[in-house]
Amino acid sequence: MNILEIIAKKRDGKELSKEEIEYFVKEYTNGNIADYQASALVMAIYINGMNEREATDLSIAMAYSGDVLDLSRLGSNIVDKHSTGGVGDKVSIILLPIIASLGIPVAKMSGRGLGFTGGTVDKMESIPGYRTNIQVDEFISNVEKVGISMIGQTMNLAPADKKLYALRDTISCVESIPLIASSIMSKKIASGANKIVLDVTVGKGAFMKTQEEAHKLAELMIKIGNLAGKEVVCVFTKMDEPLGNSVGNTLEVIEAVNFLKGYMPKDLKDVVFELGAQMIKLAGFGDDIENNKAKMQENISNGKAYEKLIQMVQNQGGDISYLNDTNKFEKAKYIIPVESKTSGIIKEINAEEVGKVACFLGAGRLKKEDKIDNSAGIILNKKVGDYVEEKEVIAYINTNYEEKIEYAKSKILEIWKIIKNVY
Amino acid sequence: MNILEIIAKKRDGKELSKEEIEYFVKEYTNGNIADYQASALVMAIYINGMNEREATDLSIAMAYSGDVLDLSRLGSNIVDKHSTGGVGDKVSIILLPIIASLGIPVAKMSGRGLGFTGGTVDKMESIPGYRTNIQVDEFISNVEKVGISMIGQTMNLAPADKKLYALRDTISCVESIPLIASSIMSKKIASGANKIVLDVTVGKGAFMKTQEEAHKLAELMIKIGNLAGKEVVCVFTKMDEPLGNSVGNTLEVIEAVNFLKGYMPKDLKDVVFELGAQMIKLAGFGDDIENNKAKMQENISNGKAYEKLIQMVQNQGGDISYLNDTNKFEKAKYIIPVESKTSGIIKEINAEEVGKVACFLGAGRLKKEDKIDNSAGIILNKKVGDYVEEKEVIAYINTNYEEKIEYAKSKILEIWKIIKNVY
Repeated sequence: MNILEIIAKKRDGKELSKEEIEYFVKEYTNGNIADYQASALVMAIYINGMNEREATDLSIAMAYSGDVLDLSRLGSNIVDKHSTGGVGDKVSIILLPIIASLGIPVAKMSGRGLGFTGGTVDKMESIPGYRTNIQVDEFISNVEKVGISMIGQTMNLAPADKKLYALRDTISCVESIPLIASSIMSKKIASGANKIVLDVTVGKGAFMKTQEEAHKLAELMIKIGNLAGKEVVCVFTKMDEPLGNSVGNTLEVIEAVNFLKGYMPKDLKDVVFELGAQMIKLAGFGDDIENNKAKMQENISNGKAYEKLIQMVQNQGGDISYLNDTNKFEKAKYIIPVESKTSGIIKEINAEEVGKVACFLGAGRLKKEDKIDNSAGIILNKKVGDYVEEKEVIAYINTNYEEKIEYAKSKILEIWKIIKNVY
Repeated sequence: MNILEIIAKKRDGKELSKEEIEYFVKEYTNGNIADYQASALVMAIYINGMNEREATDLSIAMAYSGDVLDLSRLGSNIVDKHSTGGVGDKVSIILLPIIASLGIPVAKMSGRGLGFTGGTVDKMESIPGYRTNIQVDEFISNVEKVGISMIGQTMNLAPADKKLYALRDTISCVESIPLIASSIMSKKIASGANKIVLDVTVGKGAFMKTQEEAHKLAELMIKIGNLAGKEVVCVFTKMDEPLGNSVGNTLEVIEAVNFLKGYMPKDLKDVVFELGAQMIKLAGFGDDIENNKAKMQENISNGKAYEKLIQMVQNQGGDISYLNDTNKFEKAKYIIPVESKTSGIIKEINAEEVGKVACFLGAGRLKKEDKIDNSAGIILNKKVGDYVEEKEVIAYINTNYEEKIEYAKSKILEIWKIIKNVY
């Protein structure tokens, strides 16, 4: 077997065998297959696809490219949560402390920024001192100690996926159903939870643009999960405009903190509560979805959810004074208001486009090696359905590069589609 | 403009603009675009294709990524020759000294091994001391001095193509008509000749498997050439079984030397004479093809062609004692005869398969960084149409790796297809 033959096979639209997929994953992880070879294969997979069998083999091979976590110390009902990603998606940072505050153990590994969407790990790292690169033993101990831990993919967890995930991001090969499904499921298989709630996002700011694609992805993930002995529930959520009122790492952490203090943008609240209610049910803590939502609301109101976030951050070295006073976060050098040219109703804010502008401003990566600029991003002052006056601020650009302001401004004025008041 | 958008465009089967192609070529050459990004784009081009306009823009951008040679010091009728590649193709090493011996100046830059075919530069480098990495001034002086110089692509000649050519070889993206055409024509445009004979190989050992593909490639190259102001003639030659009796670097140099000493395998002779006669015509040294061939034969018989090879090699630091006594060349550690299991007539020897076995034995590259093993390769003792007895030797394996012998043997027995004598 050699990589040239494997690349050529997929290049020509043929099916790869289990052995070929295992060989690729193993040798790429070991560094015996170069990035540029993996890159060619990934592009061929993107264009020519993979069937269910190939995607399952890829997921399992990537899961077993490293350690497969044993979470049995934490009980038998561990529920994991994953989102297929969106722009402004700070759901995990909000939802998981709520869940943990209800006594359900949360052991969550997250990913980094991918294309036009941000990654939870990048966001968490914008809290000074917060450690995301933590080994398994400490991770489980943290959950035992404070009921929750959120970390990155540690060195030994699905290293093949970690490597491929970063690569795909830099070669425009993110939005592929078999690659997304395999990436997610490899991490879920390796992460040790036996029950998984998947937030499958659909819309202009999601990888899945249509219900049809989203259903295909969900089906494939459920299939892969079942073959690996996991109980999987998919929740479909809309992702047309960005979720909540901010896009960018520090900006989203601040929004998450505010949410747990009771300031909840409607669209963000809907997603958090729907997913949370399903997690609680899957964990065996209550079958009634509405009742589960009420429990969540209670722990926000009484401060227990916020307290759980504080405990977790402190336990992993984060400086909680930043959360208690979010004004302490370093701000971007330039915070520039963008004023509407007309008055009217906002009809559309394409989340993907907003994500790209945020990325351009420094909040995301174009190349694998790129550093993220924590303070960069966009504040959405007006969202879809809002009425806006001429010269009213629709958004704030946050950037450290003066030369990026003009382009970002013009893009934002394009992206915020306003229809004139017809009355 | 950014590379992610360019990759995504071609990934989705769209046409790239001139500006996008120029941006890619420039930034890849500068190292601002990573190999793994170029690799993804190349695979997308391979699968989704390029139209004539894109291929022309790519050729010109790659030609002008470095110096464009000015050969005017050598006269106005410089004829270049290029082959689209084959297995066992040592034509340049034979043909060009013959041409030079007729008083036509030869300034030839060649490439390295590509996929299952060998490269002329690698072959020339198997002559101890022979320098292929020579700068332009010395190159032209060499032609002025001895009438011929054969070198590799020097640092400043189509560096973009050099980089892409090496990359394609390691990602199974060699056999693409627009990429082959652009690669060849970029080098031809930059190499400074105004007249070009192209050997378009067709068959099982060529990149073009069918007449139809070969004609497509030829048409595209003629089109690109004309747009760049070059006179281009295409000659179609068969490449089903390997050309001549050897595959491998040193082995092919020895065969070339023997040819110029008068030992000419029929198939190799046909190709050398057909191309040579066209070159002589294009150079304005004779319109009658048969007459041109007679001139070539004369200079082989009287030793002038061989003498020209010796002059060139000596002039570039090569040790000509190896050519005068080819037994001096270092031999592979293991030279193993492969005996036929049956008797009969040889019906087929798939050149590509032979090339792959030679590559496996050490004569080619799987990765960009791989070193070539000069002594490795295969001697073809029996060729298509030959009668063979049971236990008669059909080929000799030349390798330095004992562990490769058994596999190579079994492959050779598979590849030499023998039909039993039906009388």
